[in-house]
Amino acid sequence: MRCIDWDDGAVRLIDQTALPGRTEWLRLTTVDGLVDAIRRLAVRGAPALGAAGGLGVALAAYRGEDPVEAGHRLRDARPTAVNLAWGVDRVLRLALSQPPPDRAAAAVAGARAILAEEAANCRAIGERGADLLLDRMGHRPLRLLTHCNTGWLACVEWGTALGIVRTLHERGLVERVYAGETRPLLQGARLTAYELAGLGVEHRILVDSAAASVIARGEVDAVLVGADRIAANGDVANKIGTYPLALAAAWTGVPFLVAAPESTVDTGTASGADIPIEQRDPAEVTTAAPAENPAFDVTPHDLVTAIVTERRTIHPADEERL
Amino acid sequence: MRCIDWDDGAVRLIDQTALPGRTEWLRLTTVDGLVDAIRRLAVRGAPALGAAGGLGVALAAYRGEDPVEAGHRLRDARPTAVNLAWGVDRVLRLALSQPPPDRAAAAVAGARAILAEEAANCRAIGERGADLLLDRMGHRPLRLLTHCNTGWLACVEWGTALGIVRTLHERGLVERVYAGETRPLLQGARLTAYELAGLGVEHRILVDSAAASVIARGEVDAVLVGADRIAANGDVANKIGTYPLALAAAWTGVPFLVAAPESTVDTGTASGADIPIEQRDPAEVTTAAPAENPAFDVTPHDLVTAIVTERRTIHPADEERL
Repeated sequence: MRCIDWDDGAVRLIDQTALPGRTEWLRLTTVDGLVDAIRRLAVRGAPALGAAGGLGVALAAYRGEDPVEAGHRLRDARPTAVNLAWGVDRVLRLALSQPPPDRAAAAVAGARAILAEEAANCRAIGERGADLLLDRMGHRPLRLLTHCNTGWLACVEWGTALGIVRTLHERGLVERVYAGETRPLLQGARLTAYELAGLGVEHRILVDSAAASVIARGEVDAVLVGADRIAANGDVANKIGTYPLALAAAWTGVPFLVAAPESTVDTGTASGADIPIEQRDPAEVTTAAPAENPAFDVTPHDLVTAIVTERRTIHPADEERL
Repeated sequence: MRCIDWDDGAVRLIDQTALPGRTEWLRLTTVDGLVDAIRRLAVRGAPALGAAGGLGVALAAYRGEDPVEAGHRLRDARPTAVNLAWGVDRVLRLALSQPPPDRAAAAVAGARAILAEEAANCRAIGERGADLLLDRMGHRPLRLLTHCNTGWLACVEWGTALGIVRTLHERGLVERVYAGETRPLLQGARLTAYELAGLGVEHRILVDSAAASVIARGEVDAVLVGADRIAANGDVANKIGTYPLALAAAWTGVPFLVAAPESTVDTGTASGADIPIEQRDPAEVTTAAPAENPAFDVTPHDLVTAIVTERRTIHPADEERL
């Protein structure tokens, strides 16, 4: 199943804000509708956002609108995930390389190629990450901890960090998954719990701040997270709350793995200090008091044991660069 | 103002579960009623729980009930905070040292002494902690980060960690306070924000997992927390989420201060491994998925810059013992 797809002149996606209570599919026929869906997180997750960016440009071309202008609006909908801009730019390049009458077909084909590739990439990440963990930890059922949602809902199909969990589960090698609830929008408690229950994986939700002490007590073999942008030096921007997990893993001596497609690697960004961090509405946290609501944090590369993409494994803590 | 007090044959306390929406005072005339108030966190915070334990024994004695049996029920209401047992035992000893006709008066006097002492202790902690910070950081307005609620609501009067903030604020030396919302029951977003707004202190609420990256960005001069039990080696049990703050502070080189009355120090407990951690109802986290809900974590002493009590400052990270 894909969380987002091209549907005969429209973008079809599952509305993740309604999950797990209701399964609602949206059929969006305008770029404005898609931009709104991206902003309010009806579609989210770095790889899915890459697909959404490409599909948005295809939708504009299909409707005979200016794909460059549409690309600007799509790119600005969320600033941190580099995949969104990557998907926009890739399909835009394809469209503009054709004479005007052929642009729509080229753009739609380009967006469909992203969908297929993201799905294949996640399978490869799952295999590579599972092999890496079993090599390190021995061939035994593992206790894993993850954050936010990095499954098929975030990634078109299969998943990145949760894709590794899924591959291990297919091999019968998952003992338990701890998932941080992921305040403020509870993607862990809502989406990851929904996916894990669907797969039949034993799991427990934790308030985010409880994860560090579960790691410290020795109940976690590895921490697995996704990424929204990976800088050239291996610094990783990901959902707010990732960085304290990396601190706890490093302090306890537990591997901290980042799983992401190559499209998340941004070698044009030197380090985490150069990654823009989206600030969201304080009302997502509280309506009763002043609040800050950064949506992401940056984990310095010296806390990252390995980054697993569909074609390589990099060890940033050992000063390997991307 | 006191959050809990003796009121002519009853225990009067502010119902903290209704704050900040409603200010409701409860007048409890039975030990059962008080045990229930402690369990559902209508009264909470280690020093306030010490007072509640003492007042509960006084209430039993006043009603002519068996204070020893009442003491057992009170002590079992919450396992982690040592102050509750300490308050029970102290007033029980006083009561039992008297012939039966004089026990009620002795118990009530003993409970009232605890109330007065806790209030005085917090003032002393506030002065000592403020002086310590200004000595370390220089005499300038400070940016502080705290967790859960350690103000007058937690401490009869004034507060421990928040008491230090209050003392600094009286001296005009607080630039800003960051407060973790404190999932699952949001004592930070509900109670600390209410207290800081009442005092006119500039403050911002963060989701708990955002605190580490705010510290890492250099926006915090010191982290201040309370404690529910301090072991002989300086390990500190406190509200879940304290330990990752200590990791972030240590990694960033920011002081991590624990403020608590001496009644929180439990030299009978060798280290954090011996402190029982209360597991609360998973439904406080989520009703939709399996959850674990540890209410406290343990911060190892090597992450604690200083413990400030009403009469001494200890440096556990430098291997000073209690």
